[in-house]
Amino acid sequence: MKNFEFKNPTKIIFGKDTIPKLTKQLPTEAKIMMLYGGGSIKRNGVYEQVKSALEGFEVIEFGGIPANPEYDILMDALKIIKEEKVTFLLAVGGGSVIDGVKFLSAAALYEGDEPWDILAKSIRTYKGMPFGTVLTLPATGSEMNSGSVITRHSLKEKRTMGGPGLFPQFSILDPQVVHSIPKRQLANGIVDAYTHVLEQYMTYPAGAFLQDRIAEGILQTLIEIAPRIIADPTDYEAASNFMWSCTMALNGLIQLGVPTDWAVHMMGHELTALYGIDHARTLAIIAPSHYRYNLEAKKEKLAQYGERVWNISEGTIEEKAKAAIVKTEEFLHSLDIKTTLKEYTEDYEGTAETIAQRFVDRGWKGLGEHRTLAPEDVEKIVKMSY
Amino acid sequence: MKNFEFKNPTKIIFGKDTIPKLTKQLPTEAKIMMLYGGGSIKRNGVYEQVKSALEGFEVIEFGGIPANPEYDILMDALKIIKEEKVTFLLAVGGGSVIDGVKFLSAAALYEGDEPWDILAKSIRTYKGMPFGTVLTLPATGSEMNSGSVITRHSLKEKRTMGGPGLFPQFSILDPQVVHSIPKRQLANGIVDAYTHVLEQYMTYPAGAFLQDRIAEGILQTLIEIAPRIIADPTDYEAASNFMWSCTMALNGLIQLGVPTDWAVHMMGHELTALYGIDHARTLAIIAPSHYRYNLEAKKEKLAQYGERVWNISEGTIEEKAKAAIVKTEEFLHSLDIKTTLKEYTEDYEGTAETIAQRFVDRGWKGLGEHRTLAPEDVEKIVKMSY
Repeated sequence: MKNFEFKNPTKIIFGKDTIPKLTKQLPTEAKIMMLYGGGSIKRNGVYEQVKSALEGFEVIEFGGIPANPEYDILMDALKIIKEEKVTFLLAVGGGSVIDGVKFLSAAALYEGDEPWDILAKSIRTYKGMPFGTVLTLPATGSEMNSGSVITRHSLKEKRTMGGPGLFPQFSILDPQVVHSIPKRQLANGIVDAYTHVLEQYMTYPAGAFLQDRIAEGILQTLIEIAPRIIADPTDYEAASNFMWSCTMALNGLIQLGVPTDWAVHMMGHELTALYGIDHARTLAIIAPSHYRYNLEAKKEKLAQYGERVWNISEGTIEEKAKAAIVKTEEFLHSLDIKTTLKEYTEDYEGTAETIAQRFVDRGWKGLGEHRTLAPEDVEKIVKMSY
Repeated sequence: MKNFEFKNPTKIIFGKDTIPKLTKQLPTEAKIMMLYGGGSIKRNGVYEQVKSALEGFEVIEFGGIPANPEYDILMDALKIIKEEKVTFLLAVGGGSVIDGVKFLSAAALYEGDEPWDILAKSIRTYKGMPFGTVLTLPATGSEMNSGSVITRHSLKEKRTMGGPGLFPQFSILDPQVVHSIPKRQLANGIVDAYTHVLEQYMTYPAGAFLQDRIAEGILQTLIEIAPRIIADPTDYEAASNFMWSCTMALNGLIQLGVPTDWAVHMMGHELTALYGIDHARTLAIIAPSHYRYNLEAKKEKLAQYGERVWNISEGTIEEKAKAAIVKTEEFLHSLDIKTTLKEYTEDYEGTAETIAQRFVDRGWKGLGEHRTLAPEDVEKIVKMSY
């Protein structure tokens, strides 16, 4: 096990009918900006519950944050935050709204001239404007971590940011929000969380036995609840386990003391930036090819995953590893998630070269747990994903 | 899954040669009391490392905190803390030293007349004096939770306390401290952590699938590393997994949204108070009888534990449950831990009645996950443990 540091101060309030608890989490003198997305919260009752909990507070609303939170829109919110002297941000939404609020938390107290630098120059945030979240879509884990991904369409860029100042002060997780989520989003959420685990687990054995067990436990739980939640999102037992698994998949615990990969996300982000494909689906496109391409480096963990998560008991390490990738694809297909690029766009020729070139243009850092994957490796992996 | 709230702000600094990082964790103006136990830290090099990290700080030392931290000794420390206007407490030790420091953290800022009331009247601490820990003995998990157990020999009492103000600000976990721990303490630590998991897991199925998986993962990890660490405490891979498993066993995560039992601890504490038997060994005495006595209520989870942790695949639910208890006893015996009271004291007759009476005298609250175990149940369970 490698050395690690861990501190996650976010307060989680989890369970049925917990949104009214919001009132007591807010500083009494706060001037609040409440941010949300495309308006689904107005149809599923969350908006009313939040507004009711905010009675007596000074609140400015800012709706319309899109999936893949857009820099230009967030800059409009930032202007209002500064003009109106907002002191507390409240994200009501899924990962996109929360990620957007994290950028605003950082940007509101940023002392440089150009907030884009936070993303372009990977400036870490040690102190942001305090914020909390009411989660409406389990998937990204953003409700209990300090990372964020922001998109800037005018540059076709999708960039990451973060820092210890960007943990939510609290996050309210009422699994009943799952009841009204469309199947497509549920499937995306399951795949997003599942891939988050894989990115932190599918590397090389690092002697972190407990972290492996917990990672496998999240995967097993997602596999167990996936058909239930897709069949009936009002199944509270399935919804609550889905929601908590998504949070635990990316709250920092399973990455402690282990190498992490994240190459699937790096390549996937490019597919979203280029074609607007749902984040989770880009992961489903890339992951199987990535694991096949890197089979030699990852086969021990792939086989362990096959044995423990998919009960694959026959064959050599390599055979088990390959069978585990097939099982993963079957799981994705069972959620009606397609796993090749050509099923999403006819315009896929040249994508591999374009993505490799984009990495080169940004200054190549090397991908994968050893940071040894070169542009030509990326090109091959993306081509295998066509 | 039940509703829950969770916030654990302790910063963990984990790994090889991490004790020098202590310097940067302390407030620069702090007047520090460094507390430790019987002096093993002076033999294993930890004392020197800590002193070196404390260079330049104003430090008062207070050694001699015994296993089962003793109220009267802690009151001596409290007097010095007040006289010398100490502002920061540093626990260098195992669970006993850390628990003692938690009591002092609470008592130092307690406004009542009689600090014993914090224990006797279960007064929760919302703000304590800030403290950190350097862990020298993996076992109790006290380094990442806000609970404490204090003994007062003059009253033959062992009482619990806690509150959100009693999380360590930081805990430094260097698995190399394990290298010099005697076998007896290593076995105690494994059993302590193992039983912590059982108390939060071995109840009735509550639909918290992920918490179950994590609990099972900790048990599997402890089973995996136990023979290695007993055979060779300098096995760093085993030591690091042992240490992290002990922390994760009682940092709050696996109890989220599930019923918890803790009856084994409640009865075990009495055996320590009466006979001075090592805490972990009292748990090993009580646990098998407790699970046999409550088989009907706990058989689903016992069988699940048998299947997933011990690979028991044959038999009915009840047969698997019984086999799982036998496996647990065999595991304890493999660590050279005896599981009946008579192996620890010849003077055991009447113990069951005495313990039941002590619970009655304190005001009976009911034990077990349903809080329905009566004094006569306790009497029977303890008798089964003779």
